[in-house]
Amino acid sequence: MNQPTVGALMAAEIGEQPSALARLLGQGAPDVERAAQIIAERGPRFVTLVARGTSDHAAMYAKYLIEIGLGLPCGLASPSTVGLYAAPLRPASDVLVIAVSQSGHSPDLVSYLTAWRAAGAVAVSVVNDPSSPLAAASDACIDVRAGQERAVAATKTFTAELLALWMLVTAWSGRSLESAAALPGLVSMLAASPDPIAEIADRYRFADRLIVTGRGYGYPVAREAALKLMETSYLAAHAFSGADLLHGPIAMVDTATPVLFVAPPGVGAQSLRPTAIELRERNVDVVSIGGGLAGIASHTVELPPLSEDLAPIAAAIPLQWLAWRMAVDRGCDPDAPRSLRKVTRTR
Amino acid sequence: MNQPTVGALMAAEIGEQPSALARLLGQGAPDVERAAQIIAERGPRFVTLVARGTSDHAAMYAKYLIEIGLGLPCGLASPSTVGLYAAPLRPASDVLVIAVSQSGHSPDLVSYLTAWRAAGAVAVSVVNDPSSPLAAASDACIDVRAGQERAVAATKTFTAELLALWMLVTAWSGRSLESAAALPGLVSMLAASPDPIAEIADRYRFADRLIVTGRGYGYPVAREAALKLMETSYLAAHAFSGADLLHGPIAMVDTATPVLFVAPPGVGAQSLRPTAIELRERNVDVVSIGGGLAGIASHTVELPPLSEDLAPIAAAIPLQWLAWRMAVDRGCDPDAPRSLRKVTRTR
Repeated sequence: MNQPTVGALMAAEIGEQPSALARLLGQGAPDVERAAQIIAERGPRFVTLVARGTSDHAAMYAKYLIEIGLGLPCGLASPSTVGLYAAPLRPASDVLVIAVSQSGHSPDLVSYLTAWRAAGAVAVSVVNDPSSPLAAASDACIDVRAGQERAVAATKTFTAELLALWMLVTAWSGRSLESAAALPGLVSMLAASPDPIAEIADRYRFADRLIVTGRGYGYPVAREAALKLMETSYLAAHAFSGADLLHGPIAMVDTATPVLFVAPPGVGAQSLRPTAIELRERNVDVVSIGGGLAGIASHTVELPPLSEDLAPIAAAIPLQWLAWRMAVDRGCDPDAPRSLRKVTRTR
Repeated sequence: MNQPTVGALMAAEIGEQPSALARLLGQGAPDVERAAQIIAERGPRFVTLVARGTSDHAAMYAKYLIEIGLGLPCGLASPSTVGLYAAPLRPASDVLVIAVSQSGHSPDLVSYLTAWRAAGAVAVSVVNDPSSPLAAASDACIDVRAGQERAVAATKTFTAELLALWMLVTAWSGRSLESAAALPGLVSMLAASPDPIAEIADRYRFADRLIVTGRGYGYPVAREAALKLMETSYLAAHAFSGADLLHGPIAMVDTATPVLFVAPPGVGAQSLRPTAIELRERNVDVVSIGGGLAGIASHTVELPPLSEDLAPIAAAIPLQWLAWRMAVDRGCDPDAPRSLRKVTRTR
């Protein structure tokens, strides 16, 4: 691989997101409609989502969409129950399994999906490679069409997975995909450069710890931001839901630990305000990604106007730039984090 | 409160665990049998578990027990879907909701349980206060009978919740509770003093970061250990499943970051061996709680002989002592962590 500058691959892929999202909205719609139709015909009563790493955060976003939008109980799978412990699955014709994976190659995801499908479940995969084993093992596959991802740290495939899952749940609910049409244009400025996070990256250049929090739709993006910071700049980044932060982890927070809130305006951000106020009173830096903590946050990164369920897709982008910029500033190469492989094949 | 020495409350409550577990096995069995009978009569097809903080780790353990032992799909709830977003729940007569809470007072858990019950679900609570609102809101309540917990850091209520959930799933499966009869006696040495972890606590006295990992039944105990270390000694402790560790977080691990494995012998530990070997080859400290990494780990804390599903209850105890000891050594008071209240009332 020719890399003109450190982090060039990751930077390029962050920048590609508006076009990747536009491609998915256009070319991906038939995949989504077909999967939604297969699901609707089967009328599942319960959804289990299976994924690893970054894709697990996309799956968690889908869990919120499904629980809130459809009122169905929904769980994030522990693939080891099937793969290691050979759980004796009950007949599952009322279960929907959704597997999310950039590569579509992880054997534990394939075996989990296959086992539930054999028990009668309907199985949908969301992948960046429609020729992958996971796609082949499912009843319907949504290709997120993000293009080849060369950087080890996933960026464009994450936001494409988020949008694909939003499209799937929206179509399954019988609602129009039209409300996402403006998304690619609205995030174009955010994706174009790290400028919106430059001040924050400078301020935390010497931080050793950092906490990212969120509640509701935004929480999975907080999880993903912490993972990205860990894997690219080796920061001790933690993610907690805004509710769990008060159950113990807040003891760890001191004035040297900035707390980033994924807080686009909405009921999620509203519920985070008391925690943000408490932290500010203790002189802790509160950074808000989105305008939901106006009047409280010490620093705010503005997001374009989007509904609360779509806003996490935009919020992910400045947080990707933050991970990229902090890695570069610290002399790490975000395109080649130490010890990592692009495709992890857990058994 | 009279505290003769720093951390005396937490130390006393760690030491009480054998008697608390014995009390639950004896006096708690009728609660469990009644709850199991109510569940069996309703024959739920899906389980949603709702909890926060330490109790959420007990709920996660129950998720493994239910998925592996009963083959039912099972999810950990995001209470905000009901409490903040007012999800329109579908009719749920085939759903079991299990709420786990030391205090039984958190409004978001009560409203989540109540909403699902109103939709037709059967609701069971596992609490340390049978007169709590959560107990009153459920069809059946299991009192974990751990006695009043005065330390802010939960210890005896955690292992009591684990055992109560094990008893519930075992009784619901129609199996005998007899296989846990020896548990209180078997963990008595572990609970009696911090000696088994003294060498490890000394070795990591100056560590700033620490990772805890596990897979399968042991993973929730890894999560709880990280939380306990964060809340008592303010360490940047992270927990990852053994599978997810390879998806990014491993980039953060260097030779100054010890990795603790919750690894009693069994298929969970077996699957962790390649990761442990890889870390040892990179000169990273690998501490095994349990004998499942024999020949690999640099340090091992022995556990009594228990089946893989019960072993996490024993594994929790030396990790509680580790948090206690590291807090005391660093001049923190594990009985009164900064910024924490005993009962968190999220809305």
